[in-house]
Amino acid sequence: MCELLGMSANVPTDITFSMAGFLQRGGATGPHRDGWGVAFYEQEGYREFKDPFPSIDSPVAKMLMNYPIKSRIVISHIRQANVGGVSLGNTHPFSRELWGRHWCYAHNGQLAGFKDQLPLTYYKPTGQTDSEWAFCWLMGEIREAFPQPPEDQAALEHLIHSCCEKLRLLGVFNLLISDSQHLYAYCSTKLAHITRRAPFGPAQLKDTELKIDFAACTTPKDVVSVIATEPLTLDETWNIMQPGELVVFESGELVTVRPSHTLPKI
Amino acid sequence: MCELLGMSANVPTDITFSMAGFLQRGGATGPHRDGWGVAFYEQEGYREFKDPFPSIDSPVAKMLMNYPIKSRIVISHIRQANVGGVSLGNTHPFSRELWGRHWCYAHNGQLAGFKDQLPLTYYKPTGQTDSEWAFCWLMGEIREAFPQPPEDQAALEHLIHSCCEKLRLLGVFNLLISDSQHLYAYCSTKLAHITRRAPFGPAQLKDTELKIDFAACTTPKDVVSVIATEPLTLDETWNIMQPGELVVFESGELVTVRPSHTLPKI
Repeated sequence: MCELLGMSANVPTDITFSMAGFLQRGGATGPHRDGWGVAFYEQEGYREFKDPFPSIDSPVAKMLMNYPIKSRIVISHIRQANVGGVSLGNTHPFSRELWGRHWCYAHNGQLAGFKDQLPLTYYKPTGQTDSEWAFCWLMGEIREAFPQPPEDQAALEHLIHSCCEKLRLLGVFNLLISDSQHLYAYCSTKLAHITRRAPFGPAQLKDTELKIDFAACTTPKDVVSVIATEPLTLDETWNIMQPGELVVFESGELVTVRPSHTLPKI
Repeated sequence: MCELLGMSANVPTDITFSMAGFLQRGGATGPHRDGWGVAFYEQEGYREFKDPFPSIDSPVAKMLMNYPIKSRIVISHIRQANVGGVSLGNTHPFSRELWGRHWCYAHNGQLAGFKDQLPLTYYKPTGQTDSEWAFCWLMGEIREAFPQPPEDQAALEHLIHSCCEKLRLLGVFNLLISDSQHLYAYCSTKLAHITRRAPFGPAQLKDTELKIDFAACTTPKDVVSVIATEPLTLDETWNIMQPGELVVFESGELVTVRPSHTLPKI
């Protein structure tokens, strides 16, 4: 299994504190030694950093810890390989373009029979993972239903949720995906989130002896949500997601909570 | 205008030496201060590093100078903005997926009337540059002509060349593009290339006081081609490309040279 980390914020925000704890799980406090990656949406652009090595040994991770990129949306992943070997091509996050927007995706879990169950149309995987295959299938479903950006955001959320529920029938499917404006998080087995806003207080990371006083590095208007496989801090209350639940964040705020619903078999 | 750097090699090769000279042109020996980026094909995967700042001041560039990534194909770009502001979204190289392969693209030049002349189909730009628009148009043309990977490589090269010749009618269009197997270079005004093979010798960079003895860091079987807007070394003979010429590299070797041909107006 792997671990996921996501962030949505209403102002460009530095995620160095959360990543400092998260990246410890890539070989130090966690066994996820098979590569890691992070994607930043910033300045209406998008960039990824990846390394097919444990995050605690990665020169790229070290550089990022000293280069606080300010971003509105972040998706990060540390990998413990199951389907597909340890290689750059199998390292999350993955991205594709739709509607002139970068879509970014990272998955924690494992899917059985994915090649038979998930026919590909427009997008094709470049690596060997079940994760990227499922991403290509999901993007194809979205593109087919919405050749143009939908005016009805709820309809898009419904489609994404339905696709996730179908994917959960194939195994474990915890997901972070963003269309550059929203951050969607779907829980199959394990995912937690927290929204921080004024009055900000201190926090202590679980995975390393690092403390922060958010009040010292924020303004009263800042709203920042963080999503992770397991809570990252010891002294804050995280919302533990339910299996089958989809949540959507926009500009740091939790804007949609969709509980699991019954679905037909695919 | 911008500057381009490309590499094709028959074994995973470290491009640090060439990049050390090239990146000086991003604010030191050249005026290209508006961002830079580099894409590496490695381990059958693909990754990009970008910064919307001058390459001589970039923490990402500094990190890469100490992290010799070994790659079969590299495309790099330093930008002096004309169309589209200075931002991450407008920073080259750009990439899209076709046939389950990462395509990577960087452009030096400027195109007039591109929105009217280059209708988009499958791929849409995420930024504001003429460059990314032309890339999306070119990828759409390739996808329409070859929904599947072509068995006839010459037919693909002919299509790419024809598209480039059309683009040259709109302005200046020096190009590097790769489909993950081949590296294509098209010259509109300025591009040079060199192929290094045994017996390897020493070389002295033009833009910084750095020398290398390639014999010390290669094996007799290595073949490495480098393509750049202007020759990077002082003591080697580079091939200066002609306007309208397309060259194709595969596994380090120059495999195709196509001179300019007359084309109908689009």
